[in-house]
Amino acid sequence: MSTWMEIEEIAKQWTIEAGERIKEALKNPIKVESKSNVNDLVTEVDKATEQFFYQNIKKTFPDHGFLGEEGVSEDGDINTLEGTVWIIDPIDGTMNFVHQKYNFAISVAVYHNGVGQIGLVYDVMSDELFSARKDHGAYLNGVELAPVRERALAESIIAVNSKWLVENKHPYQNPLSALVRDVRSIRSYGAAAIEIAYVAADRLDGYISVKLSPWDYAAGLVLLHEVGCKASSFTGDPLTLLDAESVIVGKPQLHKEMVSTYLGEEV
Amino acid sequence: MSTWMEIEEIAKQWTIEAGERIKEALKNPIKVESKSNVNDLVTEVDKATEQFFYQNIKKTFPDHGFLGEEGVSEDGDINTLEGTVWIIDPIDGTMNFVHQKYNFAISVAVYHNGVGQIGLVYDVMSDELFSARKDHGAYLNGVELAPVRERALAESIIAVNSKWLVENKHPYQNPLSALVRDVRSIRSYGAAAIEIAYVAADRLDGYISVKLSPWDYAAGLVLLHEVGCKASSFTGDPLTLLDAESVIVGKPQLHKEMVSTYLGEEV
Repeated sequence: MSTWMEIEEIAKQWTIEAGERIKEALKNPIKVESKSNVNDLVTEVDKATEQFFYQNIKKTFPDHGFLGEEGVSEDGDINTLEGTVWIIDPIDGTMNFVHQKYNFAISVAVYHNGVGQIGLVYDVMSDELFSARKDHGAYLNGVELAPVRERALAESIIAVNSKWLVENKHPYQNPLSALVRDVRSIRSYGAAAIEIAYVAADRLDGYISVKLSPWDYAAGLVLLHEVGCKASSFTGDPLTLLDAESVIVGKPQLHKEMVSTYLGEEV
Repeated sequence: MSTWMEIEEIAKQWTIEAGERIKEALKNPIKVESKSNVNDLVTEVDKATEQFFYQNIKKTFPDHGFLGEEGVSEDGDINTLEGTVWIIDPIDGTMNFVHQKYNFAISVAVYHNGVGQIGLVYDVMSDELFSARKDHGAYLNGVELAPVRERALAESIIAVNSKWLVENKHPYQNPLSALVRDVRSIRSYGAAAIEIAYVAADRLDGYISVKLSPWDYAAGLVLLHEVGCKASSFTGDPLTLLDAESVIVGKPQLHKEMVSTYLGEEV
């Protein structure tokens, strides 16, 4: 039986190695396909990277469960977080990976009975590894991140995808626009795992998405917990980690204000 | 009389040294002030960095003109681009500098009789130096950037600040929203010089701002020219480099389409 510290070390090694393989793959042309729509991209590198993690986990920890964006698990999708489960996005920010060859991350989380134990977000090209183990702090390249420092909403920088502001396929256009007006500034990096890690690292005060999948935020939640930041659905409910849902992340006071004043209303 | 190649080398040395000084300054608390409004920030580091360039330029090239964001020049603001003029933003993305200690750049341009000769954009914390000399190509950390490759508007990623989408203090809210709807995705990094350099480096297909000052884009224009990208005001007119104005940057076909279909209309 490995300790969480040992599992974290192994997970880090796999993540760095996966990053090296991705950089190698970027030297050749990348074959791109679309998934649910023309802008939902996937590449052979996403699949190979998830396969790399899946094979390593099956071999080393045969009794651990696996939930990954590209669905390479031979056991099919899991529908429970009982036991120990790895939740992996092999390339978070695939559109950045394809267009920019930059600003994408490997997101690796290990949960036990629904509780986040280990969270790693590795920005491959910037070589920034955000890491956290439950009750042992969060780190950026080995340097411990400071506990959360609050800022007033009017002085906060939050990340939100501008597309949500001009689309009315969801009911949040008006409250999101009001929030964007009221904060100090908006950023958008196109990679949820990086944006959530930036909140933990105090580069952003908050992050909002109308719809995210568990692998987009599972590792980020562990980082956030260690520095004292909050995450929930728009209604303020805990994230289930088993389905796509709205996600609002931030420093505690800002998170509370964004939910209560802007996005938590029944719409 | 120095050659442009020699001036570029000197400019690069000063820029790298200025970056080292900024990193040093970040080890201590930074004193922040507001300028035109509460969100228009400036620090002692912005001023000291501009002073560093100004003193070096006056000493080494006493007959060169100087235009900088923080107005440290003893000669006052210039109102002509005759002769050789340095146009400098000591810290582009001051809000990022203050909040994130990340994602800010030193922007250094040298123009001669209004024509861009040298452009440097140095992302200090990522240690990425984008550089160009007229007719000698554009480079990222010494590796030459590829000539422009076009993408259809519907497959393009452009950078635009979300605040422009929710504010109606300017007349472009509707055409900007339409453009945001029609492109593949939006990014926002909060530092114009970096965003323009990203267009030159093919990390973005376009960049738009309702209002920029000359020091925000002067170096970027030299980079863009070398890879074959375009820049203009929203009406398609050349940028004057002497006043704040709207700026639209992109690959030639995309730039043309953004001006003609979205933003160039009389409003």
